[in-house]
Amino acid sequence: MKRASASSSRYRAAGVDLERKESAIREIARLARSTATSQVIADVGLFGGLFRFPSGDYRDPVLVASADGVGTKLLVARMAGNFSTVGRDLVHHCVNDILVQGARPLFFLDYIAGGVLEPRDLVTLVEGVVAACREHGCALLGGETAEMPGLYPAGDYDLVGFIVGIVERERLLDGSRVREGDLLFGLRSSGLHTNGYSLARKIFFEEQELSLRDRIPGDPEKRRVGDWLLAVHRSYLSVLEPVLMHPGLHALAHITGGGITDNLPRVLPEGLQALVRFGSWEIPYPFRWLQEKGNLELDELLRVFNCGIGMIAVVAKEEAANFVRSLVERGEHPLALGTVQQGERGVVYDLGATEGGVLK
Amino acid sequence: MKRASASSSRYRAAGVDLERKESAIREIARLARSTATSQVIADVGLFGGLFRFPSGDYRDPVLVASADGVGTKLLVARMAGNFSTVGRDLVHHCVNDILVQGARPLFFLDYIAGGVLEPRDLVTLVEGVVAACREHGCALLGGETAEMPGLYPAGDYDLVGFIVGIVERERLLDGSRVREGDLLFGLRSSGLHTNGYSLARKIFFEEQELSLRDRIPGDPEKRRVGDWLLAVHRSYLSVLEPVLMHPGLHALAHITGGGITDNLPRVLPEGLQALVRFGSWEIPYPFRWLQEKGNLELDELLRVFNCGIGMIAVVAKEEAANFVRSLVERGEHPLALGTVQQGERGVVYDLGATEGGVLK
Repeated sequence: MKRASASSSRYRAAGVDLERKESAIREIARLARSTATSQVIADVGLFGGLFRFPSGDYRDPVLVASADGVGTKLLVARMAGNFSTVGRDLVHHCVNDILVQGARPLFFLDYIAGGVLEPRDLVTLVEGVVAACREHGCALLGGETAEMPGLYPAGDYDLVGFIVGIVERERLLDGSRVREGDLLFGLRSSGLHTNGYSLARKIFFEEQELSLRDRIPGDPEKRRVGDWLLAVHRSYLSVLEPVLMHPGLHALAHITGGGITDNLPRVLPEGLQALVRFGSWEIPYPFRWLQEKGNLELDELLRVFNCGIGMIAVVAKEEAANFVRSLVERGEHPLALGTVQQGERGVVYDLGATEGGVLK
Repeated sequence: MKRASASSSRYRAAGVDLERKESAIREIARLARSTATSQVIADVGLFGGLFRFPSGDYRDPVLVASADGVGTKLLVARMAGNFSTVGRDLVHHCVNDILVQGARPLFFLDYIAGGVLEPRDLVTLVEGVVAACREHGCALLGGETAEMPGLYPAGDYDLVGFIVGIVERERLLDGSRVREGDLLFGLRSSGLHTNGYSLARKIFFEEQELSLRDRIPGDPEKRRVGDWLLAVHRSYLSVLEPVLMHPGLHALAHITGGGITDNLPRVLPEGLQALVRFGSWEIPYPFRWLQEKGNLELDELLRVFNCGIGMIAVVAKEEAANFVRSLVERGEHPLALGTVQQGERGVVYDLGATEGGVLK
């Protein structure tokens, strides 16, 4: 891993407690090695991570790659003094981003930057990354740590992930299979996942002056603000991997920044639109509370937050019952959100009887 | 590319000039498409970038991956109001990091984060990345832009790159071929490359109170501080790719953070050390000036800065003349730095007659 040497010199230049940092770097290298799959050739000490490509296993393999951060969820983690969950958030976000193209993860790299790299925080961040990589059979092939006092405030970090996965070309999900009449099934999110934190922090902490320990006012489930905001971005790999080969699965959309409104159209061909029935799922209380306290228009709510839906599967109507049964057998109860219909590419929300209209 | 949608919603939430930003995002997507190699399947609008793996071209392919930033060279770019070069720095750094394992680049992803993403800066940053990707036959497969006002100061950016390359396993350079008696050849750097900027900035701007427009005092070449500090990190791909198959090439070391001292040992097997003759190359004036003004011990100088050597090739003695000739034919004149000898793994500097000793 690159970071073993590059970082130690940066630490030295910064004149900070070198020994603790070198010990942290060794610990990180040890953690990273624990994720090595049989395809990893070597790691520590070299310049790039080495991954033996499983040529024989694929006829026409496509590599799927994605880069992501966790946004200002990091600032909530800092408030909480708890960097143990954001590493998982990062890996899960990346895993989902390639899963929606039908790919399973091969390897991952991370980048951690901060004004001062506190060894304990660094190890905690990487522990989260490593735990999630192990659970997903994904090798942590390398990483970079950068200490940049002039750029980042002390105590703050940015955390970036890069993932590479693989899919057989004929199993690639790219939206081209989506047809008029297909059904939309939503899988629940665990919270905000990694999007909308700038607005949520403003409403919770600045406007409503709540603290992390406070319960969300009026929440029937009595969730604490901090617990809800730091709930780990859900990974959909274990639930969806078994149905990636299902003949009825036409597309998957990961609901990240931009919400259902911006993400679902990415997998729709020209001339098709998603009709989402607004009452077809219950928006979890914290999102509704954010809407009310933030005076958010419904349109804005649906663009900034996932509103309780972290993943949407587009499924052929005739295969839908069978598809849903496969998920239910795994304990996942998808929500029937709506259908695909002819029209301008985009999402149309059917507000039903309650509002008597359609939100375009 | 992920950023098309994810970012536009972030912009909206931040309430800034949406139209200019969306126009910048479209421009970035257009730029990224211009790098598409024949292996790229699709880009804009999907969640992950798609790259068709060239299975038929390799018997036992190894993927080599690396993540990197450009450090606080970004702060110099901001001082200069010129973000046109750091994109190239980033790609070149990454290209070199996998080149030293014998790999040529397949694809690249970038991550750009800032407190406020100024559309013009964003396009300028990506233009640099794109130009370098095109020159290296490397597809810009995706990227992420993140606007995080609470984490980054306005006007500052962090820029992170992720590269994946490929090498036939039997051509993998991993240091295992290095033998006692091998010769070390250095290739010149173009300046600081992307390491040592925190210290260099401190000496140039804080201690010596120079400005970017000032000439480096006493420099016989009369370089301006800004020009030297922003000189683009040199890519060694065009020079070294033709000799990657040379039977005499045993290893390559990219001299980044940690200098020759920390980077060269990465490719040395246990029980072998590099003997570098200190007078075998002339350390360029700006490095010597930094040493003097910064009161740096020689040991520190050689760890923080590349001291004029950006890449070192370890070459079999009997093949060395032929190897060097191949480079000279391409206009590259490598410097004979020293040899590989038995001893504790590391670098030993032979200070010669001038200092009458050896620096371990």
